[in-house]
Formats: sequence, structure tokens, C-alpha cells
Amino acid sequence: MELPSKLLENAVNEIAQLPGIGKRTALRLALHLLRQPLDQTQNLSTSLFKLRSEISYCEECHNISDNAICQICSNVKREKGLICVVEDVRDVMAIENTGLYKGTYHVLGGKINPIEGIGPSQLKIKTLVDKIKAGNVEEVIFALSSTMEGDTTNFYIYKQIKEFDVKTSTIARGVAVGDELEYADEVTLGRSLLHRIPFENSLKYN
Amino acid sequence: MELPSKLLENAVNEIAQLPGIGKRTALRLALHLLRQPLDQTQNLSTSLFKLRSEISYCEECHNISDNAICQICSNVKREKGLICVVEDVRDVMAIENTGLYKGTYHVLGGKINPIEGIGPSQLKIKTLVDKIKAGNVEEVIFALSSTMEGDTTNFYIYKQIKEFDVKTSTIARGVAVGDELEYADEVTLGRSLLHRIPFENSLKYN
Repeated sequence: MELPSKLLENAVNEIAQLPGIGKRTALRLALHLLRQPLDQTQNLSTSLFKLRSEISYCEECHNISDNAICQICSNVKREKGLICVVEDVRDVMAIENTGLYKGTYHVLGGKINPIEGIGPSQLKIKTLVDKIKAGNVEEVIFALSSTMEGDTTNFYIYKQIKEFDVKTSTIARGVAVGDELEYADEVTLGRSLLHRIPFENSLKYN
Repeated sequence: MELPSKLLENAVNEIAQLPGIGKRTALRLALHLLRQPLDQTQNLSTSLFKLRSEISYCEECHNISDNAICQICSNVKREKGLICVVEDVRDVMAIENTGLYKGTYHVLGGKINPIEGIGPSQLKIKTLVDKIKAGNVEEVIFALSSTMEGDTTNFYIYKQIKEFDVKTSTIARGVAVGDELEYADEVTLGRSLLHRIPFENSLKYN
């Protein structure tokens, strides 16, 4: 794709580095910006740069936060002894949306992934182990995605904390609410049978 | 979607203003940038702003160009008397890729579209008419997309230039090369029958 302008080419190449955006889409987006007022590009450009250069993370849970301690960690109503281990801020948002979780989080910032060169030292694992060592944690809930990378990360953390007096659990896997059994995959359906729960418990949130 | 940081929220809102990108994708892109080196965001941010603020257009054909006159218009081998009217730079690139066009272009910058508030005065129509008035143009090829807006724009220009001594033509519409007849829509197939060409002509580019 030969572009008639160096400025356009630079912009297209930079946009196309974003995940899921190819050169063609990048060109479409660049031409769109050219048709919009200068303000829009200026705001986009500034907000991206400010985000990347000024972003800060909660000192407790490592979630993205404008303050040193995030709103969840600084909320006295939250159970500090219950920690849900998640990958990134999107998982925190998803769990918060359920309105059913009253504990706190620990955001790892990714999963152990040797293929992409992400080892345990690049994740916020040490601070989690330190929190547990300090002794105020009752339960750790593993809520990483159930992929090989997620399982590896769970197990790596588990090995480091099992010697301490802390309960560990993982979120339930099973057939989604509203889904029909015949369309569930075998692994999921199998797990939902193995990890069946007392019927009375299932009535709680209906 | 409640985000835990104002910086993140601003960036997501700005990204989500791009066409075809929703809030969820915007958040994914923003979090991706946070995991990449500062350089990448800086380059993206700078190249977008430079593109929008420093972009210039060819004085002859209004295509995007880093010079006052673009490479096509300044090429002495190009036929200046043959002008292909297109919507934007992507159409120029598409036609250039065929390698079969030796004339020049006139980039309108859009199509007449009352619903989006785009009238003839916002497009580069007057300069096209002026070029034709000046008398050095032999043929104008309309190559806008065959939508209602494209047809309206073609007709609007045609009305203004028909009094001058200039040939007008439009690119051929028909069944695409390699396509099977049974899958072509009726309008396209109908046009390709009505505008059939002498068989000998079809052998030229085989």
C-alpha cells in the first residue's frame, strides 16, 4: 500500500500497531480524523499520551487508580481479608458489575506466558505473597481465565502461599445461567456435574 | 461502564469516537497501550496530531500530498486532459494499483449528502468546473461509488459542465472478473448486459 504522503504513512503505521487493526482500517481511521475538526485529533492525541505517561496504580491492589489507594481498597466496608486475584482492570470491572463481591482485589497485570516472554517477575505476585505472609488474609479467590496460562499462574501462586494459613478457592466453572445443556461443551458440563452444589444454595440468588 | 480512573476514562471516550470502535474495544486498546513502552504511545500520539495539523493537499487535484503539487500531477507522462473524479485518496490508490490509468485525478473530498449535511460547497467541485472552463480538459471520468449520494454528485457536476466542450464518461459497472453470473445481483447483471462491449475489446487485457 503506497501512500501519497509521509505524514499519512506515519500515522497509518502507528495506528496499525494496535491489536486487531490492520493497515486498511488504520487508513480509514486516519482519513476520518482528517475530516473532523482539529479539536478531536488534539483531544485524542493528548488523552492517549497523558494516559500512558501519567497513569498510576493503587499501591494496595495494583488496579489502575488516580489516587495512591483506589476507591475499593480505601472503602472501609470492603472485607480486607478476602482477596480476589484477577488479570487486569477489566476483570475488576466485570466482578464489580455483579454487585455480589464485597472483598478486595489483587490485579496481577497479566498471566505467566513463556511464549510472550512474561514470567512471574513481571507480574505483581510478590506483593500478593507478602500480603499473605503478613497474616491478615483469610481467603484468596483465583479468578484468572481458565486457559493454560491462567492455570499455570494459579498454580505458581498456590505453591508459594500454601504453607501459610490461608484458604484458597477458585471461581465456579459451569454451564452459564440461561444456557441450554445441549450447547455446553463437555469440559464445562463435566465440571458443573463434578462441582455440583446443594440445591438449597442455588436458591439464594434467584 | 464505570472506569476506576479519569485518565483512562478520557482516553477511552476519545478512542470510542472513532468510527467502528465501541467503548469495549476502546478500553482494550487503551489497556494495550499501557502494557507497551512509552515510545509507542508517544509516536502514535505525535503522528496523529502532526497528520491532522500539518496535512496538505495538492493544489491541482486536492489529493493528500506533502508537496504543493502531488507526484501524479507533477508527472509529465500523465495525460492532463483526462481527469478521473473520485471521492478520496483511497480511490486514487485503488485506481493507481490497477496500473491501467494514465490520466490525472480530481479528489472531491466526499459526496453530496444532505443527511450528513454535506453540500456541494463543501466539496472541491468549483475548482473542477474552473479547470474545464479553462478549456484544457478532454474527458472527465466519473468514478464515485454507485450509491444515491454518488449519483447525485455525478449529476450535479454533469449539469455544470455539460455546456462546455468536454467528454464525460463513467466507469463500467458489471459482473466482477472471476465472479459467477448466478451470484451477481440483478442490477449489476442487467447493467453488464445493457452496456456490453465488442468481444474483440474484451481480449485486450487478458
